[in-house]
Amino acid sequence: MANFADVAKQFVEFYYNQFDADRKQLAPLYRDNSMLTFESASVAGAAGIVEKLSSLPFEKVKHAVSTLDAQPSGDHGGILILVTGALLVDEEQRPMNYSQTFQLMPDGAGSYFIYNDVFKLVFG
Amino acid sequence: MANFADVAKQFVEFYYNQFDADRKQLAPLYRDNSMLTFESASVAGAAGIVEKLSSLPFEKVKHAVSTLDAQPSGDHGGILILVTGALLVDEEQRPMNYSQTFQLMPDGAGSYFIYNDVFKLVFG
Repeated sequence: MANFADVAKQFVEFYYNQFDADRKQLAPLYRDNSMLTFESASVAGAAGIVEKLSSLPFEKVKHAVSTLDAQPSGDHGGILILVTGALLVDEEQRPMNYSQTFQLMPDGAGSYFIYNDVFKLVFG
Repeated sequence: MANFADVAKQFVEFYYNQFDADRKQLAPLYRDNSMLTFESASVAGAAGIVEKLSSLPFEKVKHAVSTLDAQPSGDHGGILILVTGALLVDEEQRPMNYSQTFQLMPDGAGSYFIYNDVFKLVFG
């Protein structure tokens, strides 16, 4: 199995590429027991999470990752990730800073799913 | 047992109060299998973590929490927390923005310890 730092890096790249290309396609990355907290509003389960992400009031979106730190998160093979970055939406010229924490869990089939997802805009 | 949101809020308040008063006293909050990643440098174990925190090049420090979001982080009773806030050190007048992720785990005696701790300054 790849080490946690490599998995974290590959996951983050894949996740934001997919989010920015078509965030409706993110459902396979979540499970029924996954939880998303987006700007302090929480929703559980893959279907609800993707509905929430799809409902966000922008069409074009581009994430630019500034930093990524990962740690193993327990005996169960989980991986904790803290991302800081910038988000550019639609015709807005100024990026918004954000921080996002993921906990990935092994799916039992050699891959990972998102168990925890906490997204927060940062105003400095 | 208190719910995860209350535990998260109480923990964050206690942690930063203790950090700002005397960060050498944080050791009881960590265990031998805890991990801290501070500005992308990682250290494991309560002793090493507190040594790292104690070695940081400032004396006076004050954390001001802007936002706190928490989720349950698994069947084991863990709690995931994302904090965004500002840090004021020594005689510096301008606060630095930071984001910090904790995963708390139950200690089996009715309380919690810090299993994961990832701290990152945010430059906007």
